[in-house]
Amino acid sequence: MTGTTSASSSPLALAIDFGGTKIAVGVVAPDGTVVDATEVRTPAGQGAEAIAATLTKAAGDVLAGPHGARVAVVGVCSAGPVDVRTGTASPLNVSDWREFPLMERVAAIAPGLPSAFALDGVALAAAELAYGGAKDHRDALVITVSTGIGGGLILDGQVRAGQSGNAGHIGHLVVDVDGPECACGGRGCVEAIASGTSIARWAVDNGWQGEPATAALAEAARAGDELALAAFDRAARALAAAIAGTAALADIEVAVLSGGVTQVGEVLFEPLRRHLAEHAGLSYIRGITVVPSPLGRSACLLGAARLAFAALPDPIA
Amino acid sequence: MTGTTSASSSPLALAIDFGGTKIAVGVVAPDGTVVDATEVRTPAGQGAEAIAATLTKAAGDVLAGPHGARVAVVGVCSAGPVDVRTGTASPLNVSDWREFPLMERVAAIAPGLPSAFALDGVALAAAELAYGGAKDHRDALVITVSTGIGGGLILDGQVRAGQSGNAGHIGHLVVDVDGPECACGGRGCVEAIASGTSIARWAVDNGWQGEPATAALAEAARAGDELALAAFDRAARALAAAIAGTAALADIEVAVLSGGVTQVGEVLFEPLRRHLAEHAGLSYIRGITVVPSPLGRSACLLGAARLAFAALPDPIA
Repeated sequence: MTGTTSASSSPLALAIDFGGTKIAVGVVAPDGTVVDATEVRTPAGQGAEAIAATLTKAAGDVLAGPHGARVAVVGVCSAGPVDVRTGTASPLNVSDWREFPLMERVAAIAPGLPSAFALDGVALAAAELAYGGAKDHRDALVITVSTGIGGGLILDGQVRAGQSGNAGHIGHLVVDVDGPECACGGRGCVEAIASGTSIARWAVDNGWQGEPATAALAEAARAGDELALAAFDRAARALAAAIAGTAALADIEVAVLSGGVTQVGEVLFEPLRRHLAEHAGLSYIRGITVVPSPLGRSACLLGAARLAFAALPDPIA
Repeated sequence: MTGTTSASSSPLALAIDFGGTKIAVGVVAPDGTVVDATEVRTPAGQGAEAIAATLTKAAGDVLAGPHGARVAVVGVCSAGPVDVRTGTASPLNVSDWREFPLMERVAAIAPGLPSAFALDGVALAAAELAYGGAKDHRDALVITVSTGIGGGLILDGQVRAGQSGNAGHIGHLVVDVDGPECACGGRGCVEAIASGTSIARWAVDNGWQGEPATAALAEAARAGDELALAAFDRAARALAAAIAGTAALADIEVAVLSGGVTQVGEVLFEPLRRHLAEHAGLSYIRGITVVPSPLGRSACLLGAARLAFAALPDPIA
């Protein structure tokens, strides 16, 4: 050692993104570079311990890899709800885990390392604020539309986590009091209308004969299929209502959208902007913009790492 | 003067609460005591200057009163939207004022005094946090249901105003994408369903023959009238959706309700709690409580004064 600090000697973060479909694990540098990453399927339905074992193995493999020795901190995010006070996760779409002691297991994976724990949407918001679509904004809503709908709130230049850690959970904003039942136990949540699952279900219920997936629906919509167009219009309208309502309530200036469903592009964004113009009547929310996220599928890992670096005794921003 | 500080020598705030129906002006002590107050009707529809003249006269009368000499700061709140950056007000229900330079006029009323300007809902939230139903809470939603629906957000023990000053404007959370048109230009906002005006309109549209006012409807509801009961149930359901959605999004623990319509009591609160239990399915929002505000009709004056004292070069908290 010569006393100089090079990029290759800076501390790294082990980042874990736990979701209902996949578990992603990576090693991330303070500048947001992902130096190692792996992904495994979540064995949902096989019991709490089987899922924990899969996570433990994936994390252990990464720690045993070429960058493991430099890992100094652990950042974890999970599908919600979570409880950051107790370090537990109860993901709606992973019924095996209810108040599962996720952070207790993480402590066993990487003993002695400081850690941070967040809702996946909160981690995503941290990534969008640092590197993505919310970078130049004080107040933003981050939304990810895939199997479910998650998100995070950036207020006064800070990610809001809330006391339980679940702030930003935009998927459960109620936009239709008479709407369909939601997995959360409520009704008419934007997730129950505009998630990938909900879009496909509505299309099938209304006569869609093709593959029940948003990619197939998007292709049909681009070719002018009326049912497919209506499916995205309906979802876009619910998202627009949620964005307009959040803007009215929290005084935000931009909504950053990511997630598999947003990959369909203008098939979703065109009706979204149109309905937003219709719903955003108040003077102070008329200027709200909707932008697709420039970040890729590692966004949550980046955010989890960022929150972890910020939680170090000597924080790295 | 003997050099001792007594309550009677502490500085006072001139507080102004501008609304579509009334203009309230008061003199408030740092401990929240209203030592003088007056109220005049807002001459809506008579032009911007006539309204400003009415406000100026009411404030001038109070300043010329027994406590005027001790007024050291001015706190102003207005129906929204406002723009706190420009000191202008564009109340939805006062069409004469669009970007009206309210704070320029206030500066002329009380030249040289420091001042604070806020949305009425933000002032109300400041009052609830200091003296009312949000006193022991870090995260709360304040809602006032009268002619319209306003409110404020308390996050991490602070009132959130937002960059434009309009945060907390819960009345324009969209709870029914297919719902009735709203004065804001949008559709299905909670205000368009659950405000006093909206409740009475719905009742009349559905055959109500009595006086089109919430007090009359409440009396009928208490006597078991089905139409009146349905009118409050519908409003309560929209409010419940808005509260549950806000809790999901912002991780709040209590909703504090005030305003003329909430004076009907259990006729509104019973269905509100019932629908809230139905909509608040997520684990972290299940515990949310709804409480009536303990503050009276001077709440916004108290809040405006509080914000003003906090804005002094040497803040009084």
